[in-house]
Amino acid sequence: MTEKKRTTIVLFSGDYDKTMAAYIIANGAVAYDHEVTIFHTFWGLNALRKEDKVQVKKGVIEKMFGKMMPRGANRMGLSKMNFAGMGPKMIKGVIKKHQALPLPNLIEMGRDQGIKLVACTMTMDLLGLQKEELSEDIEYAGVAAYLGDAEEGNVNLFI
Amino acid sequence: MTEKKRTTIVLFSGDYDKTMAAYIIANGAVAYDHEVTIFHTFWGLNALRKEDKVQVKKGVIEKMFGKMMPRGANRMGLSKMNFAGMGPKMIKGVIKKHQALPLPNLIEMGRDQGIKLVACTMTMDLLGLQKEELSEDIEYAGVAAYLGDAEEGNVNLFI
Amino acid sequence: MTEKKRTTIVLFSGDYDKTMAAYIIANGAVAYDHEVTIFHTFWGLNALRKEDKVQVKKGVIEKMFGKMMPRGANRMGLSKMNFAGMGPKMIKGVIKKHQALPLPNLIEMGRDQGIKLVACTMTMDLLGLQKEELSEDIEYAGVAAYLGDAEEGNVNLFI
Repeated sequence: MTEKKRTTIVLFSGDYDKTMAAYIIANGAVAYDHEVTIFHTFWGLNALRKEDKVQVKKGVIEKMFGKMMPRGANRMGLSKMNFAGMGPKMIKGVIKKHQALPLPNLIEMGRDQGIKLVACTMTMDLLGLQKEELSEDIEYAGVAAYLGDAEEGNVNLFI
Repeated sequence: MTEKKRTTIVLFSGDYDKTMAAYIIANGAVAYDHEVTIFHTFWGLNALRKEDKVQVKKGVIEKMFGKMMPRGANRMGLSKMNFAGMGPKMIKGVIKKHQALPLPNLIEMGRDQGIKLVACTMTMDLLGLQKEELSEDIEYAGVAAYLGDAEEGNVNLFI
Repeated sequence: MTEKKRTTIVLFSGDYDKTMAAYIIANGAVAYDHEVTIFHTFWGLNALRKEDKVQVKKGVIEKMFGKMMPRGANRMGLSKMNFAGMGPKMIKGVIKKHQALPLPNLIEMGRDQGIKLVACTMTMDLLGLQKEELSEDIEYAGVAAYLGDAEEGNVNLFI
């Protein structure tokens, strides 16, 4: 009996392009029969946000963060050449043209294929994001759980 | 007979400083007798672009990307303190002063030392970059090839 | 006798939030009994700068870099939503509210717990940072030392 290989990604960035890269690698690794975890922290949590507004009680700063951060993967900007939103439109245009998968579909596919999607509880607190605002079927954990996965890992990335 | 150690870098960023860091680590790893692969994806592909314009047929969006993205490592900006091009000039100034290697030379050295330079075909499609526009002596591959290298790797980085 | 696990982080970024992520993972890894090294390079060196101005002789460009870069972790900006300094204030506000540790304390804790803090000598030269300007109790090394640590590592990250 051989053990499964393991890919563990810390998704820190809240950019459409970087999140795409993370999920393309993750989906590839699942296809390669790895156990895959994506640990969403800081701005990476926004990939897990529901698109619709959710009514929750928040402090003032948390409300501001909530307003300024994108609700869901589809609203994220690019890490380069964002041009106030033109860049993401261009990328989505070429994705469609080449019949590649847009980011929300990549995430959906990841979830369906059994990638473990984890939200970092500590940074949820800091940014004031609550469980009701994040998508279903995800897990909640801290840095200890991340390290438990990562220290046995073959491919560890911080994106 | 012991197996060679392996360093595999995903170069996602198109910044002069980050690309420098990637190639410095990669050249060091070759000197340490690692097998080294740099997998260029998204903006990291620009490090492989030829400096001269190449005539190829492209769609409208692909043409725009082609114009806005730097042709080759020497034209890249900094990830911090770019100041509309002043930052790169400053960095190149101190590189010269300290007799360190500028980025194009680091890449050249990497190629000469046998680093495997790979261009991600999927993101080439998205950004509309064609083989004619990229430098010679590179390989073309997708995420599966990356994972094949990375899962056996000792040092895996996403830059 | 089993060997200790090892976590090695290249801290390239000079952002408050990314540096926080690096030190949270590093402190967690120490608690998990890993040997941990943070290799500070490029803008990541600023996390090690003393808060007070230090009089040292410098060239013109080095002086400019010295002025423009933050002196110490507490003065760093955010990688996202910096808003000319408002973002860091917001983050520090919620850190206080949630009784989490601000970045300078995370670094202090890391040093106390025995994380090896290394400054990359080559990029110190490039950015004109001198030993007198960096905090005490750190080590100085180059890419060879980094690779020596990283190639034996379980968790290798580039942040």
